[in-house]
Amino acid sequence: MVKKRKKMVIIVSKGTLDMVYPPLILATTAAAMDMEVHLYFTFWGMDLLNKKKIDKLKISSVGNPGLSIPNIIGSIPGMTAIATTMMKKKMKKSNMLTIKEMIKSSSKNGVKIHACSPTMGIMNIKKEDLIPEVTDIIGAATYISHALDADIQLFI
Amino acid sequence: MVKKRKKMVIIVSKGTLDMVYPPLILATTAAAMDMEVHLYFTFWGMDLLNKKKIDKLKISSVGNPGLSIPNIIGSIPGMTAIATTMMKKKMKKSNMLTIKEMIKSSSKNGVKIHACSPTMGIMNIKKEDLIPEVTDIIGAATYISHALDADIQLFI
Amino acid sequence: MVKKRKKMVIIVSKGTLDMVYPPLILATTAAAMDMEVHLYFTFWGMDLLNKKKIDKLKISSVGNPGLSIPNIIGSIPGMTAIATTMMKKKMKKSNMLTIKEMIKSSSKNGVKIHACSPTMGIMNIKKEDLIPEVTDIIGAATYISHALDADIQLFI
Repeated sequence: MVKKRKKMVIIVSKGTLDMVYPPLILATTAAAMDMEVHLYFTFWGMDLLNKKKIDKLKISSVGNPGLSIPNIIGSIPGMTAIATTMMKKKMKKSNMLTIKEMIKSSSKNGVKIHACSPTMGIMNIKKEDLIPEVTDIIGAATYISHALDADIQLFI
Repeated sequence: MVKKRKKMVIIVSKGTLDMVYPPLILATTAAAMDMEVHLYFTFWGMDLLNKKKIDKLKISSVGNPGLSIPNIIGSIPGMTAIATTMMKKKMKKSNMLTIKEMIKSSSKNGVKIHACSPTMGIMNIKKEDLIPEVTDIIGAATYISHALDADIQLFI
Repeated sequence: MVKKRKKMVIIVSKGTLDMVYPPLILATTAAAMDMEVHLYFTFWGMDLLNKKKIDKLKISSVGNPGLSIPNIIGSIPGMTAIATTMMKKKMKKSNMLTIKEMIKSSSKNGVKIHACSPTMGIMNIKKEDLIPEVTDIIGAATYISHALDADIQLFI
């Protein structure tokens, strides 16, 4: 009897630098554990699959109490860039791959990368804007079919 | 032998225009696939069930790097309104229903709409403030009972 | 035949006062229902396990349309403190425990409190910075093992 591979399906809905790491870390780890992994990028998460935006992901310096920057300072032009640079440095110092490298590595290790078709309509994203790692363009019904037989399902 | 219907249970914890669409799109899609669907509205998500607030949901123009509006401009009075109007226009252009229409449609298609009783206490929401589509008012233990035999569970 | 206890595994990724309540309320409720409960604290969620930060959790007064404070006012120094104090008062009035009390109570009732090792590296958190309720320090692979046989898995 063949043992079924374990399956993880994650919805990636955020496009901020801090919130795109968790799904990518989980995906690469699960792939290394020989699981079947699906990432369904939707809403702001679609910025990760957009050639023009993937290198420009930012963390927000306002509205993020965890950053300990007062809001009035966080509003000063340039502060988002500074907070983003600080986070990127910390990530590099901890030997973390960049977002782009993690997507490439996920794809190479068999992680399925699904783009959300309704989001592409709403945000006017064309097929040619997408990075080559995208597996396919699907809607909510196909996501649900994937999630129904998954062992782990998360919305991030 | 009767085949059990598949079941999806989603916690809706956010009240911003961008983050209320995902649970409602998933709920209406799952209902169309003949699944049993439960939405448990809690914390800011309760704004969707509040007659006084459902028409006033906004997206935030600050602290949202995906919007590409610098924070200092996002802080200017009126910018949240402009960003909200822009998103509503995009949604309409893509033939998306409004939030109110999606709740009505979900309810008509059998989606259970649960209001969170502790949140009502904390935020001082009265039963008469709730929209008529609300199925019942429940607490965390009842949510857990629903989630335990669900095929898909998400926190949004 | 011994009936297996039901199991819940939650990723706690946020460190704002409003978003740390949901996982703690679910955890204490599930523990009271005699479930096996695991909380995996990661990213901003690690602030809850940090002795220096647990008493200073804030809600954000900007970028949070649910609060009905205009962004320009939310940016004024002191407004985050005022919004945080307001929320703490509301919580107390509703007889809610403080975050610190909920963590203590969770731990006493058998909830496993896992700290995320990669986050500790990135944010330079030392073992001695952690509150005594922490069960262990684990990585993504151990989280996945826990989640794989859980009845409820959420990312908050």
